[in-house]
Amino acid sequence: MFRIQISPVSAVTCNDSFDIIEDAAIHIEDNRISFIGARKGAPDFEADEILGGEHLVAMPGLVNTHTHAAMTLVRGFADDMALESWLQTKIWPFEKNLTREDVYWGTSLAIAEMLQGGTTTFADMYFFYEDGARAISESGIRACPGGVLLGFLPEADKRIANAIAFVREYSGAANGRITPFFAPHSLYTCDRAQWEKLIKAAHDAGVLLHTHAAETQREVADVTRDWGASPIQTLENIGALDGPLLAAHCVHLNEADLEIMERRNLRVAHNPTSNLKLASGFAPIENFLARGITTGLATDGAASNNNLDMWQEIRLAALIHKAASGNPTAISAREAVLMATRNGARCLNLDAEIGSLETGKKADVIPLDFDAPHLTPRHNIVSHLAYSARASDVHSTIVDGKVLLKNREFVSLDASKIQHEAQKCATRLADLAP
Amino acid sequence: MFRIQISPVSAVTCNDSFDIIEDAAIHIEDNRISFIGARKGAPDFEADEILGGEHLVAMPGLVNTHTHAAMTLVRGFADDMALESWLQTKIWPFEKNLTREDVYWGTSLAIAEMLQGGTTTFADMYFFYEDGARAISESGIRACPGGVLLGFLPEADKRIANAIAFVREYSGAANGRITPFFAPHSLYTCDRAQWEKLIKAAHDAGVLLHTHAAETQREVADVTRDWGASPIQTLENIGALDGPLLAAHCVHLNEADLEIMERRNLRVAHNPTSNLKLASGFAPIENFLARGITTGLATDGAASNNNLDMWQEIRLAALIHKAASGNPTAISAREAVLMATRNGARCLNLDAEIGSLETGKKADVIPLDFDAPHLTPRHNIVSHLAYSARASDVHSTIVDGKVLLKNREFVSLDASKIQHEAQKCATRLADLAP
Repeated sequence: MFRIQISPVSAVTCNDSFDIIEDAAIHIEDNRISFIGARKGAPDFEADEILGGEHLVAMPGLVNTHTHAAMTLVRGFADDMALESWLQTKIWPFEKNLTREDVYWGTSLAIAEMLQGGTTTFADMYFFYEDGARAISESGIRACPGGVLLGFLPEADKRIANAIAFVREYSGAANGRITPFFAPHSLYTCDRAQWEKLIKAAHDAGVLLHTHAAETQREVADVTRDWGASPIQTLENIGALDGPLLAAHCVHLNEADLEIMERRNLRVAHNPTSNLKLASGFAPIENFLARGITTGLATDGAASNNNLDMWQEIRLAALIHKAASGNPTAISAREAVLMATRNGARCLNLDAEIGSLETGKKADVIPLDFDAPHLTPRHNIVSHLAYSARASDVHSTIVDGKVLLKNREFVSLDASKIQHEAQKCATRLADLAP
Repeated sequence: MFRIQISPVSAVTCNDSFDIIEDAAIHIEDNRISFIGARKGAPDFEADEILGGEHLVAMPGLVNTHTHAAMTLVRGFADDMALESWLQTKIWPFEKNLTREDVYWGTSLAIAEMLQGGTTTFADMYFFYEDGARAISESGIRACPGGVLLGFLPEADKRIANAIAFVREYSGAANGRITPFFAPHSLYTCDRAQWEKLIKAAHDAGVLLHTHAAETQREVADVTRDWGASPIQTLENIGALDGPLLAAHCVHLNEADLEIMERRNLRVAHNPTSNLKLASGFAPIENFLARGITTGLATDGAASNNNLDMWQEIRLAALIHKAASGNPTAISAREAVLMATRNGARCLNLDAEIGSLETGKKADVIPLDFDAPHLTPRHNIVSHLAYSARASDVHSTIVDGKVLLKNREFVSLDASKIQHEAQKCATRLADLAP
């Protein structure tokens, strides 16, 4: 059994009572937290590895509830364009020649970036998901990959069968770090028969559905025209909300949609940067929180962000809704931090295991180094986490009881090689794009 | 003469033609750039210090056009509150017991944070500005301090006389690094006689006026009631625009205001984070750019941000106006980078000396380290600067030809001592606040 001790440390637990323990100790045995509490009352513990320091602040690893990890390869390839021409002249031509190796290296690059910034779990949706899963498995991160289904692509039936096989094969893989989802892209890219197959498969397997919904006004208009109801209402109509469903974006909603989301426990992946960059709009997050709708944070893919930095999303979640609503009390620092941790875990149905620092939970823990000008003075740790902390303040990243990043350095992941290989893939794909 | 060579490096010059030199050399002699261009064509150079690397990208140091530096002491003391109660129950009681030492240590803390993140120049507005100037002078940073004038405080005449003396004494101080401004706080805190005195003093001395204007709807209503015209129109009416004036915020404007701003060359310090956090609204920046109104970026004070990280402001400037206007082409990466560099220098009337990498200009240069997952692949350097770079990517910070930060470490500034002393000041002030 491998044992890790983190002390002295301040702990922001993100538990139900949002306990903050100023002088804490955290004990990890194998992949679980065996103790968290005041250092004074900590049991004797013989640790194999000790982390700690006067300036360290530990919190649960961040949960990125919606991304397309391998799209790191497209980072900076095209920005500041109107959505249609951006997709049609840049993104899709770039993706057209994607290979399995590209997805492996692109996903590996995304994982390196996420681990370096304290993200320990992500929900993914992309092509060649077996190769994404290989990168996940090797890296040590926790993830919920889903093979994206675009219904208009050739051999949709075969793709659905593959997705079902993938879910069967990978459930609980990598010591339980992999939890596959089904990922129908959206109501405007999959038809009713395809949706029904995936809904049945998801419910049979007890697996979450991960999709995009109500991202743009145009989508709402198109779906309403083609399905006879709003995206959220349509998801209810076709039975997609009879089991757990995670919907990315949820920007353009009416009262009936909100009522459905509340009643059916729809989970929202809120993507602040992506909604800004693509000019999608401002999701009504205050409304979600008031109704108790489970809301997590997400980066979306690097094409529309352009990074996978959850600290940016926490900060934006706490900032943009104040201005959009004219209410400076909208979305507190604490609410934003919870969206990135415990509520993100709830979005993925993983909150029994991760999302907070509690005895018995999986050991996904990130100590941050608060010994920095921008984190001084220390009036309020949670305010600093939301408004002032950066990815580079993450001192160590522990996932499933393994130290993957220590003192800001990767323990085993070879970031240089990953960057080199990802650059090669990206250059080739850019050259191939017309 | 001290000589610094930066090569190999990629250079984003921010000059008129926005040249990007992929394999560049930069030579610095004393406090000026003596050469910048392709490495192949560089003259022989015997350097005392050499910086360089395959992954380094150099750009002009960032210009923070509006802050209240010593308010770092209030960082995280109060957030997520309505403006009035925030000021009256938290910020003002905290500031009430400020001493000169507090301002010295608070400003020093701000400078440490700014230098670490590549900010080489800032326009400041606060109390005890002589002590701020002492911190500026000692640290090596470039700045435009202005003693803030709140007309309702006791002994306003004496304060004005002090501000005039300060401008006289400090113009060109610290090897030309200090350029003092006059800083009447606003139209709603200074009366007409006070404004007229400061306008005359500014014009006599050829010095810039730095103020707040049109930040909130309430301010616009109050100023219109009390002065008979909008804030911008009032500034014109009282002669404040007969010389250079830098106005922070400029959120709530009508067509006549915009026409005045264009015609009178009013300079805008745009504060994206602060406008979001205080729910002030979205400044019409696309309109400023279309009219050629000089627009820089700024962090405002740490109380309403909560950091002094210009990378956050660049990113927000490129993101929020897309969503606010519904136009994903609003504010490009390049425009956002220029606002933080050359156009910021223009705001401060310092563009003849800083704001771009050009032969003959003062050597304020920041090489960034692009060897990182979140800056890979390298399709487009400028996109990465706007959307993906972070303060922690700044490898070195050179101000006025002096290397102040190297390999992410301070060369001479004692950040530990500054953090320690600032924490003591902040704790004392928090304890004294009721």
